Amino acid sequence: MDKKMLTIDLNSQVMIDKAEKDGVETMYDRKLAMKAQCGFGLQGNCCRICGMGPCRITPKTPRGLCGADEHTIVGRNFARMVAGGTAAHSDHARDLAHTMALSSRDGNYKIREEGKLIELAKEWDVATEGRDIYDIAHEVAEIGLMEFGKPYGVSRLLKNAPKQRQQVWKDYEIEPRAIDREIATIMHSTHIGCTSDLDSLIHMSLRTSMADGWAGSMIGTRFSDILFGTPIPRQTEANLGVLEQTKVNIVLHGHEPTLSEMIVLASEDPELVALAKEMGAEGINLAGMCCTGNEVTMRHGVRIAGDFHQQELAIITGAVEAVIVDVQCIFPALAKVADCYHTKFITTSPKAKITGSTYIEFKEEEALAIAKEIVKEAVLNFKNRDQEKVLIPELKSSATVGYSVDAIIPQLDRVVNSHIDPTGTVKPLVDCLKSGVLRGAAGVVGCNNAKGVSNEAHVTIMKELIKNDIIVVTTGCGAQAAAKFGLMDKDAAKKYAGKGLATVCELVDIPPVLHMGSCVDISRILDLVAACAKNLDMDMSDIPVVGIAPEWMSEKAVAIGCYVVASGIDTYLGIMPPITGSSRAVEILTEGLKDKVGASFTVNENCHELAATIISDIEKKRVHFEKLVEEKMMVPAEA
Amino acid sequence: MDKKMLTIDLNSQVMIDKAEKDGVETMYDRKLAMKAQCGFGLQGNCCRICGMGPCRITPKTPRGLCGADEHTIVGRNFARMVAGGTAAHSDHARDLAHTMALSSRDGNYKIREEGKLIELAKEWDVATEGRDIYDIAHEVAEIGLMEFGKPYGVSRLLKNAPKQRQQVWKDYEIEPRAIDREIATIMHSTHIGCTSDLDSLIHMSLRTSMADGWAGSMIGTRFSDILFGTPIPRQTEANLGVLEQTKVNIVLHGHEPTLSEMIVLASEDPELVALAKEMGAEGINLAGMCCTGNEVTMRHGVRIAGDFHQQELAIITGAVEAVIVDVQCIFPALAKVADCYHTKFITTSPKAKITGSTYIEFKEEEALAIAKEIVKEAVLNFKNRDQEKVLIPELKSSATVGYSVDAIIPQLDRVVNSHIDPTGTVKPLVDCLKSGVLRGAAGVVGCNNAKGVSNEAHVTIMKELIKNDIIVVTTGCGAQAAAKFGLMDKDAAKKYAGKGLATVCELVDIPPVLHMGSCVDISRILDLVAACAKNLDMDMSDIPVVGIAPEWMSEKAVAIGCYVVASGIDTYLGIMPPITGSSRAVEILTEGLKDKVGASFTVNENCHELAATIISDIEKKRVHFEKLVEEKMMVPAEA
Repeated sequence: MDKKMLTIDLNSQVMIDKAEKDGVETMYDRKLAMKAQCGFGLQGNCCRICGMGPCRITPKTPRGLCGADEHTIVGRNFARMVAGGTAAHSDHARDLAHTMALSSRDGNYKIREEGKLIELAKEWDVATEGRDIYDIAHEVAEIGLMEFGKPYGVSRLLKNAPKQRQQVWKDYEIEPRAIDREIATIMHSTHIGCTSDLDSLIHMSLRTSMADGWAGSMIGTRFSDILFGTPIPRQTEANLGVLEQTKVNIVLHGHEPTLSEMIVLASEDPELVALAKEMGAEGINLAGMCCTGNEVTMRHGVRIAGDFHQQELAIITGAVEAVIVDVQCIFPALAKVADCYHTKFITTSPKAKITGSTYIEFKEEEALAIAKEIVKEAVLNFKNRDQEKVLIPELKSSATVGYSVDAIIPQLDRVVNSHIDPTGTVKPLVDCLKSGVLRGAAGVVGCNNAKGVSNEAHVTIMKELIKNDIIVVTTGCGAQAAAKFGLMDKDAAKKYAGKGLATVCELVDIPPVLHMGSCVDISRILDLVAACAKNLDMDMSDIPVVGIAPEWMSEKAVAIGCYVVASGIDTYLGIMPPITGSSRAVEILTEGLKDKVGASFTVNENCHELAATIISDIEKKRVHFEKLVEEKMMVPAEA
Repeated sequence: MDKKMLTIDLNSQVMIDKAEKDGVETMYDRKLAMKAQCGFGLQGNCCRICGMGPCRITPKTPRGLCGADEHTIVGRNFARMVAGGTAAHSDHARDLAHTMALSSRDGNYKIREEGKLIELAKEWDVATEGRDIYDIAHEVAEIGLMEFGKPYGVSRLLKNAPKQRQQVWKDYEIEPRAIDREIATIMHSTHIGCTSDLDSLIHMSLRTSMADGWAGSMIGTRFSDILFGTPIPRQTEANLGVLEQTKVNIVLHGHEPTLSEMIVLASEDPELVALAKEMGAEGINLAGMCCTGNEVTMRHGVRIAGDFHQQELAIITGAVEAVIVDVQCIFPALAKVADCYHTKFITTSPKAKITGSTYIEFKEEEALAIAKEIVKEAVLNFKNRDQEKVLIPELKSSATVGYSVDAIIPQLDRVVNSHIDPTGTVKPLVDCLKSGVLRGAAGVVGCNNAKGVSNEAHVTIMKELIKNDIIVVTTGCGAQAAAKFGLMDKDAAKKYAGKGLATVCELVDIPPVLHMGSCVDISRILDLVAACAKNLDMDMSDIPVVGIAPEWMSEKAVAIGCYVVASGIDTYLGIMPPITGSSRAVEILTEGLKDKVGASFTVNENCHELAATIISDIEKKRVHFEKLVEEKMMVPAEA
């Protein structure tokens, strides 16, 4: 098989060829070498939870040594994926809360969005009148930190949901308590000899995932905006072509904004820019990757070098002076790839030390100084670049990014007749959904997965959806696929969107696919759907919106899928999770949950079929939705 | 292979035969059916942490898709076992803290050990003068609860260790922060694309395990003693022979004392006893299993029906009216086994719902009422017992149990000449270690593991140790093995112990193997070792004590092993953990850690060889120890 067939990205194909020529191993080589994967692992019915195992379920051994059957084993493994994902997102948020606790008027971290802080303070019953903004910030930070460990009560962010949805959570008993407690408790409950009942395991998985979506991630996004500014629309470019022949190229990879914001500042430092010129470069060129890339493109328009599957390929251009990473989704392979070029692979987090990297520990207390040290390392490394080894592929696409909810609403205001309707609400979007000009909305999120062809499912599905007048919002590596393939360009609506969506895009001046941020920023999508549902006085499950993870790969994606479903939003996966070993797990997740939370999962590894199913399901949902809309019109709303 | 060869317990062998005759499947059947286990799982080099996997390390595929090599994969899997184990123990402790927060003078849960509460309150800077004991209890409970989730600081229980050991933890940076945070953070750090460095993964594993040993478990034990009383020596009996032909037999299985304490009360309720008689029984007979069994035997002398590997066999006697469980180490298989008899299998915890069981949710607020309801279920079930199906094996051994540290010290006082030496200290024990009358001390703890022969390693090793004048303390299923095989009988010293130990046992009137409680009560062993080290003004790593888990099986045991090593105590395993896939993991865990924390692991699946190694290592340690003792004698202690 030709390795290049494993991605639809033409730049990637060029770099795969170059890697071959340079004798550098990439994920695509490892994929080809791997051949068959273990069927037990794929199906989820291999248990390694205790030291008597591993036990694997076969017709001859239908139960593990302790008596656990395939349903128990699949359920426990699934629950632990949710635990891993929730831990990752929430621990990210914890760092932001600690950063906010450190913020000060003259320190590295300042409060950029006083309005948003005050709004949150009020929501959390923190006094604001006449107080110093930093006092407020510190109190809000402490409350945020307590969301991870408070001994009593449930997430204080649940009340951001429509009251109907809150009731569902109460009834189904999936209101999450302290974030870390849910993680600890689900790890306990999946320990040998604890929960074997599959319904209970899935129930816990949903509750734990709620601690991600409606606690950890939501705190992460809100605190990030307060500290670093709420994104607004900006122009940028995406794909490996953003690397520059004549500049010091620094790739920012990982997930959190705490370090990358400081790198952005450091890269603008006149001394470092001067040093770059001294080294013979024309300047410093930052490029983002994965969710760190999303964070800095949303807030600064930093260009996007690529997605999860391109992390090795960026280095293979031979033009990258440093890859700077914090946490999550960083290939350990980068160390070996960087060794083949002059690239410095700089790790910074005690939570993600990687063998063979240069470790420069990032401490919030000395943030800017450390960031400068790191950038200096990169700049000084420019002299080691071997121009003979450089090949920067040409393609890059322009994109408009930065669509926080706060940024979307002013765009919508462009079509509001302010004599009749209020401004500053989601009503125009709701009206488009009601009228059917937009058939629905889809959040297309998640990773790249070597089980499929990189980017194929993302791009295919997004194109199909917008062609069918379904507006797409996106985060994570899904957003990077969209940006790379031109779907975030404002011209994309004309090229790819159906008539309804194209008209909306033109009137409100947006692309048909909106970049909403990093993977924790799926909380923005929850906020947007919640706002629409509240505007309609409906539950989130009543409106024609869906979640899609066409190429999901990480445990975070499993947690996300669960909280999106728990939020009443049907969720479509393009990769089968390791659950097929239990027919009942498949049944509950794809059907049974509908009765509990009004939504469930659908899986299809054929992206064309999956797109068709989604479109058809949205039309079915519209029948219910339109009926509700009609009913609501008959009952005049209370004043 | 004859199934009966898989256990050395004669009662178990009888029940395996009966199961065969009754057509009931047990673990021993599943063990024989399983044949070969997956080599990748056994070696720990199969990664299922992301949805691109599973990836397995082979000579042809030395790295997973992301580039993770065998060291990364083994390290992450190991770290997650520690997370699971720490979560289990600590979540148990959390429930006790919540229970203490609910305690009241006229409620179900009272403060039984005011002295211990006040001591802890003082340790935690809680005002005690003139306060109601319940006010103190509630404040201490809240502080305990915050140990799980406090945003800042490290475990407040670390200061119970000798100052030398505290310094080691500080230097190696393994002081654990909030318990749940460590669990969340290690789950995050083992997520795809986070830590790949093996040293870092093992470092984190140790820090997380410290949140078990020196936080969660320690809180669990202290709070249990305060609520339910500190154990004191009591006579009891152990093995399936404690079940009674003529009484309602209730088996208490699981781990926590919260429910079982109430069941003990309920079983003494005159109305329920009368009801039992009405049903034709002579009364109600409680029998314990696993750590719930340890909890109630330590505090009430409730007899021990058996260990982890006997849970199915107890039901197979046909004489058990109910098996009542809470959490951990409960075979899901019990549901099927119970179905073959009249036995009610009653689950009670939302953290451990088991398919096919009768679920009666236990709530602390209505504890006694629910306990009575459960006992009533059992009593009413007596009429359904089919006497033709009953076979209670005859063997049982007598044992003296209840050796909390607080109970050991008064025993030691028996040999103190109070004109010369202080009473109420561990000095007599220390003196025996110094003089060499006792060569050392060993904590033999842990589970049963189907990879070996049930009880064989426990009994072999304990007998060898005491023969060689090494005193044994034990918890968990190790304690149950000792009790069943007569090693906790006071006569055992004469029969099995070397001359030195036998003399000590006679003088202080103890058996050569001391039952110190359930698996969270390994914190008692830490306290004891810490007390000896402090008495000697040494580090815990300086004295000839070892930890041994001959038949470990659960993730809890992995966490325990790590915190025992982190406490400076060499630890010996009779079952190889899934780490052999990484030569470096083996090297670090068995050697490298010595430089960091002064102790490491030794593994040998041949229990005779393992015992010999332990004895020889203790003698080697004595050389160091005796030299230190001599040095200390030269420098007069400060006043």
